[in-house]
Amino acid sequence: MRWDELDAESCSVARAISVIVDRWTMMILRDCFQRVRRFEEFEQRLGITRHILSDRLRKLVRLGVLERVPYQKRPPRHEYRLTQKGLDLHPVILALVAWGDTHMAGRRGAPFLLEHRCGHVFHAVATCSECGEAVAPRDVRMRLGPGAPRKAARLITKVQATG
Amino acid sequence: MRWDELDAESCSVARAISVIVDRWTMMILRDCFQRVRRFEEFEQRLGITRHILSDRLRKLVRLGVLERVPYQKRPPRHEYRLTQKGLDLHPVILALVAWGDTHMAGRRGAPFLLEHRCGHVFHAVATCSECGEAVAPRDVRMRLGPGAPRKAARLITKVQATG
Repeated sequence: MRWDELDAESCSVARAISVIVDRWTMMILRDCFQRVRRFEEFEQRLGITRHILSDRLRKLVRLGVLERVPYQKRPPRHEYRLTQKGLDLHPVILALVAWGDTHMAGRRGAPFLLEHRCGHVFHAVATCSECGEAVAPRDVRMRLGPGAPRKAARLITKVQATG
Repeated sequence: MRWDELDAESCSVARAISVIVDRWTMMILRDCFQRVRRFEEFEQRLGITRHILSDRLRKLVRLGVLERVPYQKRPPRHEYRLTQKGLDLHPVILALVAWGDTHMAGRRGAPFLLEHRCGHVFHAVATCSECGEAVAPRDVRMRLGPGAPRKAARLITKVQATG
């Protein structure tokens, strides 16, 4: 597989990566979840060039992750809001924050804390949608899905054999 | 903030991104969680050049995400295993898979399914470490943490005001 074929690849991680794994894109999304919506706010907070910011916002709109919504008529002004597809990226950001706080925070500790509506400072825990238990790497096996490519069976067999 | 200052930035998302957000790095990690460990296996599965693969593996070892473990003496051969810091990236991969399966899978559906040890096909749900409930974007507020930079208070005030 070549990297530029990733969009067409069947692995969902590969597809997700090909969309959001751009450094500026991730930083823009992080700010979106902090309710930043306007071009100038992104520009100011990220220290990003207008050219790159325009480009990334346009891509996120085209992908359906953000939508461009008018908030003023004269002169016409737009802001960028997360769509459902964009809101669904929240667990990815939460997982990155949890990992970053554990392994990448400096000696002083986490710069920001997240407070859940339950009133407590929290970190995200990945749990099973079916039984509700926390999911550890060794608890997970891969099965072929309906959209599996031909070569997939070989890959899974290989994995189980060495696992 | 300039992108090349990201390592020194206090945001844990920014720090996490600066480490793992490289497309090939993510693909290598995906394979690590499928128990792929040897250079030639990564090379074959990813269709990556030996030069890029060496570079990314070296970086992941330096970051403490992978460790290089000898598995044969003559000739000397090594394999790459996830450390605890690497295993802790599992929720990030699970979150990417869940999002990819929901929003990026083709008409035929998900190529692979994940089976939890409870016996069911599942997707990961981000839950609160304190109350156990699922976490939605609107349920989360930011607080200043012990490692907050000076400019942080302004950023949080801004966020709460526009939220």
